[in-house]
Amino acid sequence: MRKKVEAAEGPLRKSRKAWAGRFGEETDPRVEAFTTSLPVDRRLYRCDIRGSIAHARMLARRRIIDRQAAAAIEEGLLAIEDEIDRGVFAFRPEDEDIHMAVERALMERIGPAGGKLHTGRSRNDQVALDVRLYLRDEIDDILKGLRVFKKTLVSIAKKEIGTVIPGYTHLQRAQPVSLAHYFLAFWEMLDRDEGRFRDCRRRLNVMPLGSAALAGTSLPLDRAYTARLLKFPAISANSMDAVSDRDFLAEFLSAAALAGMHWSRLCEDLILWSTEEFGFVEIPDAFATGSSLMPQKKNPDVAELVRGKTGRVYGNLMAMLTVMKGLPLTYNRDLQEDKECLFDTVDTVRACLAILPPMVQGLKFRRARMKQAAGGGFSTATEVADYLVRKGVPFREAHGIVGRLVGSCARSGRRFEDLTLSELRQFSPAFDRDALACFDVSRAVNGKTLYGGTAGETIRRRIREIEGT
Amino acid sequence: MRKKVEAAEGPLRKSRKAWAGRFGEETDPRVEAFTTSLPVDRRLYRCDIRGSIAHARMLARRRIIDRQAAAAIEEGLLAIEDEIDRGVFAFRPEDEDIHMAVERALMERIGPAGGKLHTGRSRNDQVALDVRLYLRDEIDDILKGLRVFKKTLVSIAKKEIGTVIPGYTHLQRAQPVSLAHYFLAFWEMLDRDEGRFRDCRRRLNVMPLGSAALAGTSLPLDRAYTARLLKFPAISANSMDAVSDRDFLAEFLSAAALAGMHWSRLCEDLILWSTEEFGFVEIPDAFATGSSLMPQKKNPDVAELVRGKTGRVYGNLMAMLTVMKGLPLTYNRDLQEDKECLFDTVDTVRACLAILPPMVQGLKFRRARMKQAAGGGFSTATEVADYLVRKGVPFREAHGIVGRLVGSCARSGRRFEDLTLSELRQFSPAFDRDALACFDVSRAVNGKTLYGGTAGETIRRRIREIEGT
Amino acid sequence: MRKKVEAAEGPLRKSRKAWAGRFGEETDPRVEAFTTSLPVDRRLYRCDIRGSIAHARMLARRRIIDRQAAAAIEEGLLAIEDEIDRGVFAFRPEDEDIHMAVERALMERIGPAGGKLHTGRSRNDQVALDVRLYLRDEIDDILKGLRVFKKTLVSIAKKEIGTVIPGYTHLQRAQPVSLAHYFLAFWEMLDRDEGRFRDCRRRLNVMPLGSAALAGTSLPLDRAYTARLLKFPAISANSMDAVSDRDFLAEFLSAAALAGMHWSRLCEDLILWSTEEFGFVEIPDAFATGSSLMPQKKNPDVAELVRGKTGRVYGNLMAMLTVMKGLPLTYNRDLQEDKECLFDTVDTVRACLAILPPMVQGLKFRRARMKQAAGGGFSTATEVADYLVRKGVPFREAHGIVGRLVGSCARSGRRFEDLTLSELRQFSPAFDRDALACFDVSRAVNGKTLYGGTAGETIRRRIREIEGT
Amino acid sequence: MRKKVEAAEGPLRKSRKAWAGRFGEETDPRVEAFTTSLPVDRRLYRCDIRGSIAHARMLARRRIIDRQAAAAIEEGLLAIEDEIDRGVFAFRPEDEDIHMAVERALMERIGPAGGKLHTGRSRNDQVALDVRLYLRDEIDDILKGLRVFKKTLVSIAKKEIGTVIPGYTHLQRAQPVSLAHYFLAFWEMLDRDEGRFRDCRRRLNVMPLGSAALAGTSLPLDRAYTARLLKFPAISANSMDAVSDRDFLAEFLSAAALAGMHWSRLCEDLILWSTEEFGFVEIPDAFATGSSLMPQKKNPDVAELVRGKTGRVYGNLMAMLTVMKGLPLTYNRDLQEDKECLFDTVDTVRACLAILPPMVQGLKFRRARMKQAAGGGFSTATEVADYLVRKGVPFREAHGIVGRLVGSCARSGRRFEDLTLSELRQFSPAFDRDALACFDVSRAVNGKTLYGGTAGETIRRRIREIEGT
Repeated sequence: MRKKVEAAEGPLRKSRKAWAGRFGEETDPRVEAFTTSLPVDRRLYRCDIRGSIAHARMLARRRIIDRQAAAAIEEGLLAIEDEIDRGVFAFRPEDEDIHMAVERALMERIGPAGGKLHTGRSRNDQVALDVRLYLRDEIDDILKGLRVFKKTLVSIAKKEIGTVIPGYTHLQRAQPVSLAHYFLAFWEMLDRDEGRFRDCRRRLNVMPLGSAALAGTSLPLDRAYTARLLKFPAISANSMDAVSDRDFLAEFLSAAALAGMHWSRLCEDLILWSTEEFGFVEIPDAFATGSSLMPQKKNPDVAELVRGKTGRVYGNLMAMLTVMKGLPLTYNRDLQEDKECLFDTVDTVRACLAILPPMVQGLKFRRARMKQAAGGGFSTATEVADYLVRKGVPFREAHGIVGRLVGSCARSGRRFEDLTLSELRQFSPAFDRDALACFDVSRAVNGKTLYGGTAGETIRRRIREIEGT
Repeated sequence: MRKKVEAAEGPLRKSRKAWAGRFGEETDPRVEAFTTSLPVDRRLYRCDIRGSIAHARMLARRRIIDRQAAAAIEEGLLAIEDEIDRGVFAFRPEDEDIHMAVERALMERIGPAGGKLHTGRSRNDQVALDVRLYLRDEIDDILKGLRVFKKTLVSIAKKEIGTVIPGYTHLQRAQPVSLAHYFLAFWEMLDRDEGRFRDCRRRLNVMPLGSAALAGTSLPLDRAYTARLLKFPAISANSMDAVSDRDFLAEFLSAAALAGMHWSRLCEDLILWSTEEFGFVEIPDAFATGSSLMPQKKNPDVAELVRGKTGRVYGNLMAMLTVMKGLPLTYNRDLQEDKECLFDTVDTVRACLAILPPMVQGLKFRRARMKQAAGGGFSTATEVADYLVRKGVPFREAHGIVGRLVGSCARSGRRFEDLTLSELRQFSPAFDRDALACFDVSRAVNGKTLYGGTAGETIRRRIREIEGT
Repeated sequence: MRKKVEAAEGPLRKSRKAWAGRFGEETDPRVEAFTTSLPVDRRLYRCDIRGSIAHARMLARRRIIDRQAAAAIEEGLLAIEDEIDRGVFAFRPEDEDIHMAVERALMERIGPAGGKLHTGRSRNDQVALDVRLYLRDEIDDILKGLRVFKKTLVSIAKKEIGTVIPGYTHLQRAQPVSLAHYFLAFWEMLDRDEGRFRDCRRRLNVMPLGSAALAGTSLPLDRAYTARLLKFPAISANSMDAVSDRDFLAEFLSAAALAGMHWSRLCEDLILWSTEEFGFVEIPDAFATGSSLMPQKKNPDVAELVRGKTGRVYGNLMAMLTVMKGLPLTYNRDLQEDKECLFDTVDTVRACLAILPPMVQGLKFRRARMKQAAGGGFSTATEVADYLVRKGVPFREAHGIVGRLVGSCARSGRRFEDLTLSELRQFSPAFDRDALACFDVSRAVNGKTLYGGTAGETIRRRIREIEGT
Repeated sequence: MRKKVEAAEGPLRKSRKAWAGRFGEETDPRVEAFTTSLPVDRRLYRCDIRGSIAHARMLARRRIIDRQAAAAIEEGLLAIEDEIDRGVFAFRPEDEDIHMAVERALMERIGPAGGKLHTGRSRNDQVALDVRLYLRDEIDDILKGLRVFKKTLVSIAKKEIGTVIPGYTHLQRAQPVSLAHYFLAFWEMLDRDEGRFRDCRRRLNVMPLGSAALAGTSLPLDRAYTARLLKFPAISANSMDAVSDRDFLAEFLSAAALAGMHWSRLCEDLILWSTEEFGFVEIPDAFATGSSLMPQKKNPDVAELVRGKTGRVYGNLMAMLTVMKGLPLTYNRDLQEDKECLFDTVDTVRACLAILPPMVQGLKFRRARMKQAAGGGFSTATEVADYLVRKGVPFREAHGIVGRLVGSCARSGRRFEDLTLSELRQFSPAFDRDALACFDVSRAVNGKTLYGGTAGETIRRRIREIEGT
């Protein structure tokens, strides 16, 4: 399997590996197959080429390479980009990764001048740059997606302020709330998600080129210029850190995990709400699928898949953290494993962000059924207790009184609305005429006017705040 | 985006979805793109077709479909398999998954008779079958790979019985051991891994067809016959369990995680041993790679990648467990997310099992350097303490004496071998002439003749045991 | 903070550390606090003492220590066990772990003879033994708990064979099933869990003493005798593996994760079923809790907590796997972190196994409501399709016919039962008089007589199988 | 087990549960044991009491309760806090959690007035407040700890600017770097960690009281006043979100996981460096421990434990994320499981932050050995290639030349320093007199003057920057 190279020929002159000089044997093809990252990292080609062009311009500006070489490099790289764009670029098995594939093609295309591109640069800082460029773009798209989703939620909320649903704790009906309030709860979650993605973007927005392999370089690069060309507001301050740092990936995956968690909660509710039993929403046919066996089925597949995909994102976060744990400084090849986790998560987040807003927008709410449910389960019991508090009964005592009232009704199969004042007064003399109004569901919802509460006017105020920002 | 179908036309007559009957709108193309599992699960096509052929034969045998239909189905399926094999099968965007793609193509090829294949079957039990068939095959290959790897370890062990290395605890030299003993420790780990994969195979080797969607079926299928055709020794005993069970996947991922953990430990050691500082092994050039910047570098990339990939396998396990958590019975679409985790893990395990044996086999051991290191760090101190125990000193006291001896040597920069008997006796009168022999490294190794120990004869005995089984 | 010891005194004579001989400084108290495992591992004291007694007896039998010493050691250890049992044992800050605490107390109690106990033993093999003893006992209890739970499920199933519930896929009503069938699905899951715990127990049931620190020992221990005393059917075959192996912990945690996953699914369903919306079960007041604010609330807290605890078990598995990843051979102090994961998981599994059977046993089923729901949602549609198949219609065509039938009913707000034969025949001429019987829910359930199906007779047969084993 | 309460007595009059009114049976003691969170959450008592005092003052200010009641409540709560502080508070088995324990004791102490405290408040917003108060304090301490650690790193860096070590990639010697540069790489990591903890603190610093159970309240609370009393700059904007949000916990755990990852990398290096083989550092005796069996051992236990604990923190993050996944809005009891994860992580982070700075500070560097190693392994090869680049050789060609030079030396067992100019020129005519200076290690280090590089002057500049901020 291993082929000894003739001494006369000198070490591996025929090898096409950029680093073959030091080696006395050709790489085993099984090793090439095992170590290649090309099938995964070719996705980075545009970022790689963008970074290389900036690097070449900087090298020319500092006269480390001549202007003609820089121009040839730039032209060559753009031609390569175009070839990859059009799907006609010929990758080779011995291209270890996208960086080497591009550099190899560049040298074939423009000759020895191509060999000047890698001056003062290592794949270690190059890949750190590429991934930062890539993820910065992706985060920008994700931020856009989050804003669209947030707007969708607000637009639904505006229409559903008067729609009353049961609010649940422990999945038991607890208190009636406005459907708008429900959707705006997710607005808050998405808003925090946006903040986390922004923070992540800010921390990753640092230009690592110039760190070279790990120690920096003695060549007079102009790091600030490269950073300017690539729109980085800062350059990395420690070369050893710069080549071994993948914090930004883990932080991104963590932000994605939390976002996915939020979506899984929304989807859980939508799956519940679209059951026959809840019957609160109907998912449009265009957003549901059927069964290969059971002709009557209409399934909330999109919501289920979003919920399931959260598990994958969690797995990717765990993978990335585990890969990093206990690695000695600086770069180790283990870090190559970062890309599957990253790309799979980016794809998942983007797919979910593309499908969730139209799916949610398309929901048909069964408002009558929601309202009816909102009134069931003694959901105004807290109103009654608060009524007693206003009449001077200490809260804990009021709670006990209403608890006994509920227990009595439950045992006799009656609803609050069936009670008369005199029956009420058997439980507490503090009950008065106006007590019966507590059982009104809409009143219960609209009485919660405190900031953050579910009253219609409070929700409207919150929407104005949101839209004002 | 959503297209209302004309009432006159009847519901969705033009739709190509197998389940379109009940639906009033075409599926949104974004939903098709989001929910399709075809890019992932097409890998199952052979298992899917194998299962369908068995199902068709059984249906014919029970006269649920006629023999001609069964024959046409089988012929059609084999033709489809051949097309996919040759890469000429035309998948369509509206094929939801591999099952529907195959069934759709079958109906196009053989007409309405193709519509009889799905009799008494649901995708729920079909996919459960396919994944079991797939994973059973893969586990068989993995078991083969493990046996090859174990044999590699034994073959190395046989050659290195006399090679002495430092055994480490806390990465500090602890006691000298045979290099053979070291590799046989991994034999034990791989042997347990094999056991876990076997146990997993045994538990998954159950035929689920006949469970239909979730409740079983009223059609008179012959489940035992289908099982026989597909070489399953058992059929599932509860249809609801059968369609929602993915235990075997999680169990497989868990076995893979442990196997990966073992390999990560071996690779960690090989990475350490191939440092300049340890200098115990040289990885052959054919199994190492170089640096794009630093011309002198020779890196143990294969070992690093194996170590890194362990993180990915862990992530896949976590993803699968998270996906399953808290799902109501029975099938939920979340389960579709099982395949990425599974396939990625299978690929990773197979790739590692393919590369590790030749990589380990190719190692060049620097035996002299190993031996020298084995003698350093007062690694025979326990021998000296055991010597004192044999002379009647309680162990804890002996330990203290030798500890002070080591401390004294460390402070004065001397090795055990530099000590004279009279110096020894300053630490304990129990030291006698024969004490000096304790400092001999080979004697220390070969004295550990107790079963499980590192003595040459003990290792040879263990190898005979291993090869005898 | 660090105190230099006088040279005259010799190194650290005053230190109470068993290994102080080699050291020139006292351990920093912050290090003592950071490294101690005593607050966690003291739980192992009985296993530690049981193992030490066996070791001492073996040492005496091989005349490595004299019989009087062994007797004194045994007596001393039993007295110490009794003190710890009664909560009067005085642990000290400088006791690093339970092993050292017991040995230190033994020496205080019986003098230098106590120092003979550790002959031919290291904490590395000692803790491996202790944890195996501990976990073997715990698994035995867990297996008992699983069997009780399985019996509970069978006893409920026996009573509920005739109770019909909607079977769900995608949380949409799919087909009616027997409630007994539902609970027996969990029996299958628990049965697999039992198998996994058994397999784990088998693999851990190996006696590691004699492996010493990592290399084995030159002292003539009788490992088989120790194994016999401690009821181990096997002894470890490689000392390096034996001291660094924690597979059995990870395997246990993985089995626990799967078991927890199953319980989380059952609890999810119970939480759903006890909503107002489903209304299938009532959790007895004794197994529910209330709200501090809302007087009417009755919450399924036990089920929610079981579901939540699954997350903790997953976390423990991930922690253990991560701790082990990439550790060089053999023992590393990282392994000390195994115990929190293990003990927390054991406690969680035991707590869940103690509470689930009585909770499930106490459920009050609302059978009428279940049955009514089972008939809703066109849940017999598959029966109708199978009817057409029996009349010679290819399944895929039959599926389409029934799909259109369902769509038509859904749009006009009718149920299957409202249809007349002539209406049916508008959808297919294959419908005949007997078609209407397909809409009968009980018939649908009891027609699924195929092995594994939900028919009453099939369930009874399965219960006989289960009870026969 | 369950005791039916006499109808005559009314429902559960004797029960001591605050919510017993609605219930007809006493809680099963097994349920009490299973559901109690008191052993875990009692740690929150100070935050609970602080929050309750603020709530009571606000209630009085808004005249919802009278001033005397508020004063009695405050006095009572302070007395209870004092009792718990002193360890004399009597918790009871039926106290479900710390909130109920405190309220129960308050009512015993001050009578019915105590029952007014819970007015307009639910345990749902109460626990959200308590955990936020708790974590805000803990993060403040962690931020302090990080700053101390960063200072420690700078103080070491200042002393070791001139100390040269081999910089590693793939754990192979790559290029020589300054030891100061190495430690400042960790400064950068800790600085990002600090940023993440700060961002987390900012996002959690929101006051949730007033959200009540989930819907807000109709009582005229003054949320802004409560926030002011408790030093929160903001109040929550959606009550449903506020009671079900645990983002801040997951975000904290994620920040902790990344911090732990960094520490695990530092510890990995320290473990490597303190091996005999590397021999770069000696861990002081006061920070190392010994072996129970091997008298010569000195182990880097603190570093190993820190590395191991990272696994636990990862597990806690995974547990928390899994618990949250797919939970319907709003509060579910699953959330109770958040506290073990949180407290264990806080304890771990604090313990690591307490021990790492003194441990690192105490390291004794073996500078001569470091320097010698830094020169080995052809670590100046990149300098030679850069030399050729300056002479006009394209980088890729220069890399090849030096690669062959290294290969040739490696095969003939020579070092760079052994080469003569004429030998050099056999590899390239571009080599000139001044080429030999490239082999100088200090020159290699100090030539990397680019910002972020390892040159002494660059490091000094970075330290000034750091200290200037």
